[in-house]
Amino acid sequence: MAEPLFNRLVLIGIGHIGASIAGALKLHPGTVEQLVISDTNPDHLQRARELGLGDDYVADATAAVTNADGVILCTPVGSFAGIAEAIAPHLAPGSILSDVGSTKQSVIRDVLPFVPKGVSFVPAHPMAGTEFSGPDAGVADLFEGRWCLLTPIEGVDETATRKIEQFWQTLGARTARMGAAHHDRVLAIVSHLPHLIAFTICGTADDLADETREEVLEFAATGFRDFTRIAASDPVMWRDVFVNNKDALLEMFSRFSEDAQAMARAVRWGDTDYIEDKIKRSRKIRKTLIDIKQA
Amino acid sequence: MAEPLFNRLVLIGIGHIGASIAGALKLHPGTVEQLVISDTNPDHLQRARELGLGDDYVADATAAVTNADGVILCTPVGSFAGIAEAIAPHLAPGSILSDVGSTKQSVIRDVLPFVPKGVSFVPAHPMAGTEFSGPDAGVADLFEGRWCLLTPIEGVDETATRKIEQFWQTLGARTARMGAAHHDRVLAIVSHLPHLIAFTICGTADDLADETREEVLEFAATGFRDFTRIAASDPVMWRDVFVNNKDALLEMFSRFSEDAQAMARAVRWGDTDYIEDKIKRSRKIRKTLIDIKQA
Ligand SMILES: NC(=O)c1ccc[n+]([C@@H]2O[C@H](COP(=O)([O-])OP(=O)(O)OC[C@H]3O[C@@H](n4cnc5c(N)ncnc54)[C@H](OP(=O)(O)O)[C@@H]3O)[C@@H](O)[C@H]2O)c1
Ligand SMILES: NC(=O)c1ccc[n+]([C@@H]2O[C@H](COP(=O)([O-])OP(=O)(O)OC[C@H]3O[C@@H](n4cnc5c(N)ncnc54)[C@H](OP(=O)(O)O)[C@@H]3O)[C@@H](O)[C@H]2O)c1
Repeated sequence: MAEPLFNRLVLIGIGHIGASIAGALKLHPGTVEQLVISDTNPDHLQRARELGLGDDYVADATAAVTNADGVILCTPVGSFAGIAEAIAPHLAPGSILSDVGSTKQSVIRDVLPFVPKGVSFVPAHPMAGTEFSGPDAGVADLFEGRWCLLTPIEGVDETATRKIEQFWQTLGARTARMGAAHHDRVLAIVSHLPHLIAFTICGTADDLADETREEVLEFAATGFRDFTRIAASDPVMWRDVFVNNKDALLEMFSRFSEDAQAMARAVRWGDTDYIEDKIKRSRKIRKTLIDIKQA
Repeated sequence: MAEPLFNRLVLIGIGHIGASIAGALKLHPGTVEQLVISDTNPDHLQRARELGLGDDYVADATAAVTNADGVILCTPVGSFAGIAEAIAPHLAPGSILSDVGSTKQSVIRDVLPFVPKGVSFVPAHPMAGTEFSGPDAGVADLFEGRWCLLTPIEGVDETATRKIEQFWQTLGARTARMGAAHHDRVLAIVSHLPHLIAFTICGTADDLADETREEVLEFAATGFRDFTRIAASDPVMWRDVFVNNKDALLEMFSRFSEDAQAMARAVRWGDTDYIEDKIKRSRKIRKTLIDIKQA
């Protein structure tokens, strides 16, 4: 058997993504010698233990990271600064600190200042997930065939970056590198804005007068049903994503708003060519996604 | 075996919904004595014949409806006025004219004026469908467990309405009656607005500078992927729905816009309570949908 990538790997936060990593590591034994699980939520830590997700369970993150050669932050991005500040003095020299956060500029802004010399910080974002949360929501093959994007920081040890790439590839993901700002723009349009819209339209429906609201729920058709699925996602995780990718999200929102206004205007004035054209174009995008197997 | 509901039933338009009705009728033999299929698209009519969807295939709708005791319009709602005008003189006394259109006020506006005395017009809308179109997109169990909404016109023969209800119930649907204006408002929020939004965001993504666009497609995450699925729907059908449910759609759009602006404002000012609150509320809606088994 090949050398393990990490002797002692700590997952801080054992929710949907943390538990999925733990599950994936079971499918690929030998990748990690010892998997340590840390979470401030005692119920989640206990549940992780019941599910046998790791080899060791340590509530206190500062204790957990001591002697670890790998640490992955798997909590909502708003908690990263506090966690980084707390664990920094306890990180072992030569160890790698990584994360799975959905925003990358904010993560670098919040974590990097605390990273001690001799520790390599490698920001990463596995682009896979469902609307479920918590340790029971772990999906062992979640990363299979999906992308994991790395946004390496200049001057960081290339060996560390390669190790994180290898880690995700072992769990079945394809990896790519890009700048953090670019990452945040791409994610704003493919993920963050769709979520913001889905959350919003559910609220709009819920605000309708009582009689209509009940029928909205009763007769929920395809479109709305799909939106509510997205909208069932974790409030804290998404709140943190929105405020931590504010600039890119607001830019994409404002582009979307203009386009939606133009579409509404075409509906108002019966500009059928415009409407048909826009729909045809969306169809083409869907076709491209199917062709490149992302749908 | 019980009496058939219709001796000669004509489906005008053999696309996704028409072909699904034809498929469902095969699952429930004896419901209709003779199923006649009509479509102006010779390829679709030929394909329907190859698939053996009906008992008779008649391109010309006026010829098809002669001697029929039931006719269901299954074409995009924008074509209803023209078809109604053409077939009206050929409709048999005592026959029932119905439809599957996604908008109901416009359908009544466009069809009712042409309906001859002695013919009962029963507007209906089976709330089931996918993003696919054409005769190959027929799904025999599409209506199973789904709603079919009827918006009966005052003064129309109750026996005719009951017959259409029985028809849809036989195909597995639950039926409900409501006013056409109410139908159009409910549908605007649960289906038409979600589609308008999905079409729009695909365009917004496609407008991004070339480099980002490619990565948008390459890295399409959950949110966007789900939106493109909705957005792959038929351009003509949806164009017709939008302009024929203009008032309700624009009202719902304007409510949604206000709510989305408020959400964007909360993101800009870091109002995390507001954001979390809205997301929690969407989650609750999803939960309700699951509880009443519409998700
Ligand atoms: N879900 C997705 O689709 C997805 C996809 C890619 C990346 N991500 C990223 O993955 C990360 C985790 O998301 P998730 O979906 O796994 O969320 P989750 O299911 O809610 O799990 C987060 C876990 O971290 C715990 N936690 C919160 N604050 C903590 C702290 N300060 N110290 C230790 N533990 C803490 C949570 O406990 P409590 O529940 O008690 O707070 C929970 O057990 C986020 O950064 C997110 O942006 C998510
Ligand atoms: N798809 C859904 O999710 C859904 C759900 C519920 C209700 N509906 C309603 O069902 C109806 C049909 O939708 P669909 O999805 O089945 O569309 P579709 O798959 O595009 O089928 C429509 C069929 O009607 C033909 N057609 C068009 N104009 C015609 C005319 N004047 N005379 C005869 N045939 C004509 C079309 O041929 P061409 O392709 O050559 O035009 C096509 O074969 C619409 O009114 C829609 O609002 C749809």
